[in-house]
Amino acid sequence: MMQDEAPARFRLRDADVPTLVALARQGDPRAVARLITLVENASPLSREIAAELAPHTGRAPVIGMTGSPGVGKSTTTSALVTAYREAGKRVGVLAVDPSSPFSGGAILGDRVRMQDHATDPGVYIRSMSSRGHLGGLSATTPQAVRVLEGAGCDVIIIETVGVGQAEVEIASLADTTLVLLAPGMGDGIQAVKAGILEIADIFVVNKADRDGADSTARDIRGMVALSAPGPGAWRPELVKTVASKNEGIDLVRAAIDNHREWLITHGELDRRRTARAAAEIEALALSTLRAKLGNLRGEAALPDLAAKVATGGLDPFTAADALLAGLSQ
Amino acid sequence: MMQDEAPARFRLRDADVPTLVALARQGDPRAVARLITLVENASPLSREIAAELAPHTGRAPVIGMTGSPGVGKSTTTSALVTAYREAGKRVGVLAVDPSSPFSGGAILGDRVRMQDHATDPGVYIRSMSSRGHLGGLSATTPQAVRVLEGAGCDVIIIETVGVGQAEVEIASLADTTLVLLAPGMGDGIQAVKAGILEIADIFVVNKADRDGADSTARDIRGMVALSAPGPGAWRPELVKTVASKNEGIDLVRAAIDNHREWLITHGELDRRRTARAAAEIEALALSTLRAKLGNLRGEAALPDLAAKVATGGLDPFTAADALLAGLSQ
Repeated sequence: MMQDEAPARFRLRDADVPTLVALARQGDPRAVARLITLVENASPLSREIAAELAPHTGRAPVIGMTGSPGVGKSTTTSALVTAYREAGKRVGVLAVDPSSPFSGGAILGDRVRMQDHATDPGVYIRSMSSRGHLGGLSATTPQAVRVLEGAGCDVIIIETVGVGQAEVEIASLADTTLVLLAPGMGDGIQAVKAGILEIADIFVVNKADRDGADSTARDIRGMVALSAPGPGAWRPELVKTVASKNEGIDLVRAAIDNHREWLITHGELDRRRTARAAAEIEALALSTLRAKLGNLRGEAALPDLAAKVATGGLDPFTAADALLAGLSQ
Repeated sequence: MMQDEAPARFRLRDADVPTLVALARQGDPRAVARLITLVENASPLSREIAAELAPHTGRAPVIGMTGSPGVGKSTTTSALVTAYREAGKRVGVLAVDPSSPFSGGAILGDRVRMQDHATDPGVYIRSMSSRGHLGGLSATTPQAVRVLEGAGCDVIIIETVGVGQAEVEIASLADTTLVLLAPGMGDGIQAVKAGILEIADIFVVNKADRDGADSTARDIRGMVALSAPGPGAWRPELVKTVASKNEGIDLVRAAIDNHREWLITHGELDRRRTARAAAEIEALALSTLRAKLGNLRGEAALPDLAAKVATGGLDPFTAADALLAGLSQ
């Protein structure tokens, strides 16, 4: 695994954006880390970073991986990374924890399942937190994905813990969403009922060597059958794995490839990616408008406008227009 | 009292804004009612109405009257209106009930205390509701005040029931705020503690012929003394009334006049009116921005921009700028 923010030969913090992007495109892990930190923190440089990266992005498959704590997401991700590496692909992993205030390299030490890849320069693993950031996950995660793709990753995996809204949000950021389940975790019908069916392209029943795996798989297949997708629609696949023993991972890869082919032949890849870009643009535009709302009180023009309105020299609507015109400059 | 929306010689609904304003300035009660209905409902015509009215506004004293239900607000307001009429002044009353969905002339029939003025063409009484309106009270009430002033009212009274935030909001819309209390309503120290002290320019202890009036007055005087206003600051006056017997109303008028003189000599009137106009401008600007937020999803430009971002042809920040530029046209 590449090291985050290791001691630098020169101060990366002083490097300008074109330099950082050029270094990242050469695979410099410190430059990649720095760029993700900048976009994650909604730095004013995010705009320039996005502009520099745009021409180099929009092609790498983005795989979403979600599931409740304990189903084996990190183990499965790690096994999948190994499979992609064996196929000669460079892999980027974004581990998003919407409930954690931690991000960056700090918590990677805890991710023992990922240690297999710690010395592999073809793998970049990054933890991200979304709390308190303007625009939230939907604004910063696609930017981080773009950094990874710009840095030469051929496949990008976004892993997130299954916690309601964030889970659905992450699914909307991926081309293909894997929902992981494990037997005996109360995850079967309940989880499927709670909206998982809508976001899952592939169900992975992990820990399939445990009691109850068949029952869990049957429950899911039943739900998929009941949901009766229309003609031509994707019918979610189900794969059983024992990720800790590397069993079934080849089937997961095959299912991902199947789904990607389906996406392409049905024009769904373009549709999903355009919808994703629309959500990102919208989130950024909303951030801008929200920032304007916050700035209104401090606007220098307000006292003058208010004095004119107070004495009947100006009507409040024209004053409000003038205030907003000042803000948008 | 002027009649709201009485049968018309010509259809007022078809009249343009300059005609309505001209009629209102001649004292036509139906035109006044129509204009207030338009601004209350945030009609698109509000902007033109405000522009037409602006030159005729900014001079009439605005008196706020607040207090818990049952303290005698309507009775006191009615007595105060009588006093102003005896002095030859035209009076406008806005009765704002933030908790009521009713507005317009509909609930005036319930306001039996105001029936004394029902046949007086020098008095305009109007009920307003603020629920669900863009910008809320702080956006629509000043517009209604401006209609009344434009229609020739020399004094405007905004009466509202004391319910927390709305009470404080109304106070910020008035030059002089009267807080009414009554003995034995649990209103004394508790109400004063809950922020009333900050908004009251004049305390009126109504129903002063009842047991406990002296105790209530003593409690308030104690709180005022403890609050120790700085040198040069206004020290809230306290007046005892029995509004139902018209007792003490002359003292209320005198206290209002005192406070107005103090406002003018200390430059506070300009400061309050400018702050009020600033709040109104801000509320209108916020409404505009909020409407833009709501419009984002339906923006026709979004799909094209999203398609470009999805394929790396454009960065999302530039796309967000383009989206917002389209909205502000």
